[in-house]
Amino acid sequence: MPELTAIVDSEVITAYATYVVIVVLKMMLMAPLTSYYRMKKKVFANLEDTKLAHPVEEPKFVRVDPDVERVRRCHQNDLENVVPFVLVGLLYSLTGPDAATAITYFRVFAASRLCHTVAYVLPLPQPSRALSWLTGLVVTCCMAYRVLLHNFRL
Amino acid sequence: MPELTAIVDSEVITAYATYVVIVVLKMMLMAPLTSYYRMKKKVFANLEDTKLAHPVEEPKFVRVDPDVERVRRCHQNDLENVVPFVLVGLLYSLTGPDAATAITYFRVFAASRLCHTVAYVLPLPQPSRALSWLTGLVVTCCMAYRVLLHNFRL
Amino acid sequence: MPELTAIVDSEVITAYATYVVIVVLKMMLMAPLTSYYRMKKKVFANLEDTKLAHPVEEPKFVRVDPDVERVRRCHQNDLENVVPFVLVGLLYSLTGPDAATAITYFRVFAASRLCHTVAYVLPLPQPSRALSWLTGLVVTCCMAYRVLLHNFRL
Repeated sequence: MPELTAIVDSEVITAYATYVVIVVLKMMLMAPLTSYYRMKKKVFANLEDTKLAHPVEEPKFVRVDPDVERVRRCHQNDLENVVPFVLVGLLYSLTGPDAATAITYFRVFAASRLCHTVAYVLPLPQPSRALSWLTGLVVTCCMAYRVLLHNFRL
Repeated sequence: MPELTAIVDSEVITAYATYVVIVVLKMMLMAPLTSYYRMKKKVFANLEDTKLAHPVEEPKFVRVDPDVERVRRCHQNDLENVVPFVLVGLLYSLTGPDAATAITYFRVFAASRLCHTVAYVLPLPQPSRALSWLTGLVVTCCMAYRVLLHNFRL
Repeated sequence: MPELTAIVDSEVITAYATYVVIVVLKMMLMAPLTSYYRMKKKVFANLEDTKLAHPVEEPKFVRVDPDVERVRRCHQNDLENVVPFVLVGLLYSLTGPDAATAITYFRVFAASRLCHTVAYVLPLPQPSRALSWLTGLVVTCCMAYRVLLHNFRL
């Protein structure tokens, strides 16, 4: 691993920071989107939440709705894929990779997650969602492979 | 981005480490709390788990309970909010922010998540939970904005 | 906290990177495993997904299956435990711990999560899963304790 001081101003770290913020904000956006669907369709998970959309607590609004569940599954899939990308991506960025390769990985990952969200929420016909999910997974695995090549100590 | 060696002993990194441990431990505490409710109310997700509370496997204890689900939703909300805070917060701390501002962000976030947990588990009437969730979200977005200002490379 | 340049080539950081990749890849493997069970048992969460296993969309395949839910709970438990380990572990590695101790922590954590997955998916009788989960939790708490000892600034 090269000295961190030599690369901390590098293009790779700067690009890493940019794309991490983009994909994490994208992931966090799923929460307000869930809230929007909950308010619009009056579907809540907790009795006390029904007062956000109704003057008094209303047990009949505590129910499950397919559209809300769809957004929640998309959020969950982000957690399962974006968080590993950010964690592995930090270690990858510190292995001193070629800047063009690293930035391509980050761009492909960010694009794949944007496509995944669109494909999930609209929804688009399969295999659009499956392929965008797989693309992100492959990027993270490629980065993980380089980390293991440069840091192997069991 | 300033050289990392210049700031690694800094107050911001030290405070970041302190608050990360606090909010992550808080998040991890939800798992024992879920177990406590599962044992107390004899509500399990897996047939083999029923033996933890009963001499033999008992299918009728494999069921869903509103109190257990409430704690699980609180845990899930922590995952969706605490993890982005930690990831974005690391990049934010490396931009060399003003120590007083950074520590205020960390304090407000930690306080908002403690309030959120209390408001969710008790539960307190809305909008107490919605506001504490929103406060944490705003802190993470403020930090993300600064990261993008200091590191923008698409 | 020691200067990062002094430890970035250290055994602890190298071992940290290795074990992070191992446990994160293990966690990510749960997604293909879920897909495998979904295809095998024809159980899908979205109507559009049913075309992955059938010529036309088939609403009766949109259902919940205990085996699929078991793998999904295992994946969720990984998210709830592996992510805190990685986040706290990074801060821990930067406190300059004894290499032998740190590597022991990483090994015990990785082993505990592998045991947890086997115990969950097969499944093995309890308390095998509970103990492997608890072992990982204790490792993360030990690391968190050292981080607080070395970085305390509220």
